[in-house]
Amino acid sequence: MRILVFNENHHERTRPEIRERYPLGIHGTLAAALGERLGPEAEIEVATQDQPEHGLGPDQLDGTDVLVWWSHLLHAEMDDDTVRRVRQRVLAGMGLVVLHSGAGSKLFTSLMGSSCDRRWRHGDDRQLVWTVKPGHPIAAGVPQPLVIEHDEMYGEPFDLPEPDELVFISWFSGGEVLRSGACYTRGAGRIFYFSPGDQECPVYHQSGVQQVIANAVRWAVPTGPVVSPFRGTSAPEGWWAA
Amino acid sequence: MRILVFNENHHERTRPEIRERYPLGIHGTLAAALGERLGPEAEIEVATQDQPEHGLGPDQLDGTDVLVWWSHLLHAEMDDDTVRRVRQRVLAGMGLVVLHSGAGSKLFTSLMGSSCDRRWRHGDDRQLVWTVKPGHPIAAGVPQPLVIEHDEMYGEPFDLPEPDELVFISWFSGGEVLRSGACYTRGAGRIFYFSPGDQECPVYHQSGVQQVIANAVRWAVPTGPVVSPFRGTSAPEGWWAA
Amino acid sequence: MRILVFNENHHERTRPEIRERYPLGIHGTLAAALGERLGPEAEIEVATQDQPEHGLGPDQLDGTDVLVWWSHLLHAEMDDDTVRRVRQRVLAGMGLVVLHSGAGSKLFTSLMGSSCDRRWRHGDDRQLVWTVKPGHPIAAGVPQPLVIEHDEMYGEPFDLPEPDELVFISWFSGGEVLRSGACYTRGAGRIFYFSPGDQECPVYHQSGVQQVIANAVRWAVPTGPVVSPFRGTSAPEGWWAA
Amino acid sequence: MRILVFNENHHERTRPEIRERYPLGIHGTLAAALGERLGPEAEIEVATQDQPEHGLGPDQLDGTDVLVWWSHLLHAEMDDDTVRRVRQRVLAGMGLVVLHSGAGSKLFTSLMGSSCDRRWRHGDDRQLVWTVKPGHPIAAGVPQPLVIEHDEMYGEPFDLPEPDELVFISWFSGGEVLRSGACYTRGAGRIFYFSPGDQECPVYHQSGVQQVIANAVRWAVPTGPVVSPFRGTSAPEGWWAA
Repeated sequence: MRILVFNENHHERTRPEIRERYPLGIHGTLAAALGERLGPEAEIEVATQDQPEHGLGPDQLDGTDVLVWWSHLLHAEMDDDTVRRVRQRVLAGMGLVVLHSGAGSKLFTSLMGSSCDRRWRHGDDRQLVWTVKPGHPIAAGVPQPLVIEHDEMYGEPFDLPEPDELVFISWFSGGEVLRSGACYTRGAGRIFYFSPGDQECPVYHQSGVQQVIANAVRWAVPTGPVVSPFRGTSAPEGWWAA
Repeated sequence: MRILVFNENHHERTRPEIRERYPLGIHGTLAAALGERLGPEAEIEVATQDQPEHGLGPDQLDGTDVLVWWSHLLHAEMDDDTVRRVRQRVLAGMGLVVLHSGAGSKLFTSLMGSSCDRRWRHGDDRQLVWTVKPGHPIAAGVPQPLVIEHDEMYGEPFDLPEPDELVFISWFSGGEVLRSGACYTRGAGRIFYFSPGDQECPVYHQSGVQQVIANAVRWAVPTGPVVSPFRGTSAPEGWWAA
Repeated sequence: MRILVFNENHHERTRPEIRERYPLGIHGTLAAALGERLGPEAEIEVATQDQPEHGLGPDQLDGTDVLVWWSHLLHAEMDDDTVRRVRQRVLAGMGLVVLHSGAGSKLFTSLMGSSCDRRWRHGDDRQLVWTVKPGHPIAAGVPQPLVIEHDEMYGEPFDLPEPDELVFISWFSGGEVLRSGACYTRGAGRIFYFSPGDQECPVYHQSGVQQVIANAVRWAVPTGPVVSPFRGTSAPEGWWAA
Repeated sequence: MRILVFNENHHERTRPEIRERYPLGIHGTLAAALGERLGPEAEIEVATQDQPEHGLGPDQLDGTDVLVWWSHLLHAEMDDDTVRRVRQRVLAGMGLVVLHSGAGSKLFTSLMGSSCDRRWRHGDDRQLVWTVKPGHPIAAGVPQPLVIEHDEMYGEPFDLPEPDELVFISWFSGGEVLRSGACYTRGAGRIFYFSPGDQECPVYHQSGVQQVIANAVRWAVPTGPVVSPFRGTSAPEGWWAA
């Protein structure tokens, strides 16, 4: 199983206090955490938006089983062809775990089909992440509730399609709620969105958060070769009804 | 369109402060509110658990299009045959709107298939009901959020099946969240669960709450005769494939 | 309630046998059928792809409650800005009913987030449309099964997201099945996809098919003003948690 | 992982031609197939309805991770307390895979909340099982379509709740369709229904069918201890919002 962690890597390079919080970059912190939790069967690589082809060239993508995605400010600067290539690979079966403001990325909105707009407040809310589907594999071993002492608020109404399975709902001290952990399938690819994780807060150093992301990666691993099982082509044979 | 409002009618008869809050009984308050909001096309009747056959005899049920249900303490005392009859009519197409602790009734749990257990606290929480599906007819005209100053807390994990459509999520001042408005279909019947409404609080006098319940009744009205469209019988003909 | 019926209007203009089948164009046949079934409260207009702005300019769209869509060969020639404008209006609450090969349109695929590819055979299959959710308003009054003597085959796997509600499944004489009637919400807009209707077959003259489309239009009517209820903007106030 | 295969074991004991088809009983055939496909990590046991407590006593159930269920004629004779015990264990997290006419069992209908009635014909249909969700783990390695040369017809409308995920739809030569593979969660337990498998046909000897059932067992394995995570009790603390 080969995991690729993508990060916009903008805040870490431009703002010292964020570099201090994430000296390895958010991608580095996530890669280390996944390596530890998924064990030696997982081969973990990283990609950042400032790399050629955003680190998401065909060579990189072709071997990836699950892509973990963090992005925020530079959505508009993502190259459309690269987004299209990533999207095609998701539809063909690659797993995708989208974090926090990645909700607004071209990749995620184009897979959801809705705006993914939401209420937000750049304050300092307490966030409690409640598991609403305790038997789901992505909730395994996650504290009930998972307490995040400081995070940005993302609130309903959140323009998400009805999830296939809703796993987490967040409470914010300011009075809002959010469907914060939701499962989808698009094409043959399994997609999980998880909202905690503002760059201003050390959320990804937190054990329960790492547990959710590691669970989600395992859940999203494709069950066969990543080749689209959908064919928009003629099916003249009809042997199956003979 | 004929609406039947069922109420356990226990608290109102045994505790003066609740009778004072609901002098007409919860059923009477709901019936009056629905009458006002649904207009003359709606014929509204009431039933209480202390009546013969709990007010839910065949004559009463046979003409009912949507049943609104409130119950709490006396679930165990509901007659099984009556519950079975009501359940059969829901499966045949009658709409059902279940309120608050009706979640634990034999009728609702037998239609959901799960325990419908949930966390609760008999305190004095502030509840904010957020609309998460703003285009849904049950959310039409409902304040965003709908603020309920005092209510009992029901919290996740709430043992509900994944809803067909999730319309509301509640925030509680004590730190909990709840899927508080959820749509289901069972058989041909459309079912809506709405959680606000403890007897200790004047919730059903509130305009936004009445609006939700009236919307839900309209949404749940059967679209044809209430006769089960499912046939567990032999289908030998096969003319349709000829 | 104002309904707009959009048609690519290509086959009718270029192939005599199709003009003969649909002398008013598919849009004209659908408009007439909807007018008859929805009654005087429905104001029905038509738009065709060969008109300026494809007949979908702001003036036309701004008053539309539900858009009915048929397209097939000229998807690539649809103007992107027009598609974007229609899509924004759906997300803001306008209803959308997409027919047959409209599944492959830029509009529909961009709202679904998947390829909407499917198996197909341009032959002469018998299609039986089975209602799997008999209590759903879109199934009201529809024959069980709805028999379509001749139609193009569209078959699974059909790259659709998991529907919010699945209403119809089709059987084809050649051995295939299809999720042929499926409900979605994107933004505040309600979307229904219905697969029967190849231009080679007189499907839209058939009563049961017209019934489904009229039901779907009624179901998709927005319940309030068509203005996006989602705000991707700051929510600093927090008065609701005070 | 401990798997328990339950079988009514009535036809095999009373009708020689069925004993000949399934000399080990349907349970024995399934147990052998699962043993081969799941490997040594799976410990597989069997239970039959004619055993004391139907082979489903507390000792047997307490260690079971996934229960595979086949039943048909003797639903009414199942002991209610035993059904209740099994149901409680599913709600607490045990996986459940229900086959064919098990749809009508007390266990399954009580978990679904609907009648699970369906159209049927005891003939000799050809059944094609189409995968509609090719990325789903239960579809891994399953032929597209899976061809079953002879089987009883179960057809829509099938009174099932809207599935969390629909994986298979079947086509029958007589003209019917069926949602034949569907995923649910009830409580913390994951449930999969799979329709092929009449006793009159050697369906469970077929490789593709065995593959589906083995996949489903793996999918349904609980991700933690089987103890209900739902608490219908007071939650007075509220420390999480402090």
